[in-house]
Amino acid sequence: MSNGDQPTLPTRAAGRSLDPHLARYAARTAGMTASEIRALFAVASRPEVVSLAGGMPNLAALPLDSLSAEIGELIATEGLVALQYGSAQGIVGLREQICEIMALEGISAHPDDVVVTVGSQMGLDMVTRIFCDPGDVVLAEGPSYVGALGSFAAYQANVVHVAMDDNGLVPQALREAIATVTAAGKRAKFLYTIPNFHNPAGVTLAVSRRAEILQICAEYGVLVVEDNPYGLLGFDGQTYPALRSYDRDNVVYLGSFSKTFAAGLRVGWVLAPHAVRERLVLAAESATLCPPALTQMVVSRYLSTHDWRGQIKLFQQTYRERRDAMLGALDQYLPAGCSWTRPDGGFYVWLTVPEGVDTKAMLPRAITARVAYASGTGFYADALGSRQMRLSFCYPTPERIKEGVRRLANVLADELELYRTFGPVARRAVSGPQSPSPDLA
Amino acid sequence: MSNGDQPTLPTRAAGRSLDPHLARYAARTAGMTASEIRALFAVASRPEVVSLAGGMPNLAALPLDSLSAEIGELIATEGLVALQYGSAQGIVGLREQICEIMALEGISAHPDDVVVTVGSQMGLDMVTRIFCDPGDVVLAEGPSYVGALGSFAAYQANVVHVAMDDNGLVPQALREAIATVTAAGKRAKFLYTIPNFHNPAGVTLAVSRRAEILQICAEYGVLVVEDNPYGLLGFDGQTYPALRSYDRDNVVYLGSFSKTFAAGLRVGWVLAPHAVRERLVLAAESATLCPPALTQMVVSRYLSTHDWRGQIKLFQQTYRERRDAMLGALDQYLPAGCSWTRPDGGFYVWLTVPEGVDTKAMLPRAITARVAYASGTGFYADALGSRQMRLSFCYPTPERIKEGVRRLANVLADELELYRTFGPVARRAVSGPQSPSPDLA
Repeated sequence: MSNGDQPTLPTRAAGRSLDPHLARYAARTAGMTASEIRALFAVASRPEVVSLAGGMPNLAALPLDSLSAEIGELIATEGLVALQYGSAQGIVGLREQICEIMALEGISAHPDDVVVTVGSQMGLDMVTRIFCDPGDVVLAEGPSYVGALGSFAAYQANVVHVAMDDNGLVPQALREAIATVTAAGKRAKFLYTIPNFHNPAGVTLAVSRRAEILQICAEYGVLVVEDNPYGLLGFDGQTYPALRSYDRDNVVYLGSFSKTFAAGLRVGWVLAPHAVRERLVLAAESATLCPPALTQMVVSRYLSTHDWRGQIKLFQQTYRERRDAMLGALDQYLPAGCSWTRPDGGFYVWLTVPEGVDTKAMLPRAITARVAYASGTGFYADALGSRQMRLSFCYPTPERIKEGVRRLANVLADELELYRTFGPVARRAVSGPQSPSPDLA
Repeated sequence: MSNGDQPTLPTRAAGRSLDPHLARYAARTAGMTASEIRALFAVASRPEVVSLAGGMPNLAALPLDSLSAEIGELIATEGLVALQYGSAQGIVGLREQICEIMALEGISAHPDDVVVTVGSQMGLDMVTRIFCDPGDVVLAEGPSYVGALGSFAAYQANVVHVAMDDNGLVPQALREAIATVTAAGKRAKFLYTIPNFHNPAGVTLAVSRRAEILQICAEYGVLVVEDNPYGLLGFDGQTYPALRSYDRDNVVYLGSFSKTFAAGLRVGWVLAPHAVRERLVLAAESATLCPPALTQMVVSRYLSTHDWRGQIKLFQQTYRERRDAMLGALDQYLPAGCSWTRPDGGFYVWLTVPEGVDTKAMLPRAITARVAYASGTGFYADALGSRQMRLSFCYPTPERIKEGVRRLANVLADELELYRTFGPVARRAVSGPQSPSPDLA
């Protein structure tokens, strides 16, 4: 490069790279920083390390042979459609099937109001794109999904966290958060919420709170963005009424096949009020023109030729068994002073450790002891979470989960011993929202 | 919705919808408007209409039977990878193959500097995301790709067009455009250019101009974004050295399998200087977490098991035959005063009609006469193009192309007759950049 630009922006990146393009980036790009634990993932993914960090679904139960036959047949008979451009909104037959799936959680919707996206991450990105100007506020549970925080940061939205308890989002905390935002002269554009089997918190919004949450948002003119990738993964086959089932006008709903079928297809969807749906389609066109036809047709064919309800039951059993292994091991091994959530669905347990332990600082030592987790700070936009971690039980076998928790308990005991001996250690500055690693999905 | 918001934004949309969410949208959303010809597409896609509007590749020559077998085999043997989350940057084996393909146009690159995207549209969106603040200037040929204009509008970048002639982008016009932008106190972030078989103009940047274009951009500190979906579709098998082959530090290169293999897989890529690549990966993570594993593996397997060079030769023959049909029919049928480009590759002819014809106003009449085209205004951000249209020869058969041009010639003759009789008609206000319809890709 022969231009005379000098790096002038005082970003974090300035210290770590000699990037001749540094002065050219958009302001939003400064907020895109790599997860600090990403560098550890190469180590954490070694076979001897038990990873309780990732959010990869367990696909072992999928019927690959019959899928292989169906997909081969699909290419042979409908290949000219599967390999061609399609509509930006997605294939209509799939959108009809999506409406049938959403009906399981009480949603009545028309396929015209569904937009198929490249995973629900793209849905989240599109919703943020059409609603958030820089400086707008997004309300989100604290902690919240790391990939959502990454999207909000990419659009320079400010996240204000709202407290949860064992029954999910606390209505009074929501009222107070809106009041605080309003008093600061800011505008809360939407509430981003994961009502069922929360990632990372592992809790579920009590059904008795749902109408109240919606009423508060409607009262203050705050849109609700309901993210529901785990809703069908209740361990007893239970489902809860979606927020969208109460309110079709003020809720944008995000769904996904990543946890109920196959994450690698990247097929998710947004159900939105009609006028919002029009904007979403335009936004999606500028983002990818259209979602892949092949992956949509694979999902559609799977739904029409396989016992997908039975497959979801298998997933429920798989994850329940692993949840039981994790809770049992936590009960058995963890030192006094730890507390954790007891999920009845989904992939995650949220663990709070005693005063004196910094989960982010401890992570390299945990990996040395051959166990990995996701430290809590990644799930907050405001530097909280240093005494928390997310433990995923979705992927390893029950035996490995038990062994992983045993190792984690030993690391924690060592940390606590150090703390009792030397007192508090200076904390490192904690960064803001971090981009997700795929392994953290 | 029970909040008290009233629609207050004086947007185009205000007049056409009763959208209770209108006051909530981000400023950028006002720039996302549907193509005015979209409503016509339902009519234009009827079998009796010859569509010269779409950019859909012709897939009839693809070997569906062997693809079916390979993809079935892929699911059976590597299904747990194909259906699982992957890396945000894309599968490494595919990135290696992409480097081999780019070598055909003189590019020497490392797979580490390649990011796989959901079509090159997503690459374009990510490049704009990391570089463009609202109000930044993007230089682009006039006319330019409608999907690029849609992405630039989504990030509120301002497009300044640079003139082309039959040898592509005019170096002196580029110098002048940069000077004008600089004099206005604005900053041109990058030049977006399609050097080979331009969409929609059908021209190719002369090889003798390439070094000069790069030198000008380097001199003024303007990044070059080279979009090259058609480079391997030269009708005589000819290729031209990519801009990236001259300059690895100041060029971001966008590639695609949509025109050389299968658009419906939505597999494209970005090759970027290393530091920029890091930012692109972070941006892509927040957009979709990762591209679909399945579609990447299908492309990779196709490249390793099929004679893809032979397949590209088949595509070249297919499109050359159609180009010949179109140019022959234009010579034979069009009224005096029309001029058009004579592409030696790609999908498109750019037609200029005589004074007195407004191609956008004429489109409904053309569709009534059972021929469709893409009016020129969609390819400009600044209201030009009303005397131009894009004619695509990629999809219909040669016979249909000939019949379509014959119909178009009749419509043009009628318009000119009207003009001679009644004089100029009041023009409708012309809108800014419009979002692409997939059919316009």
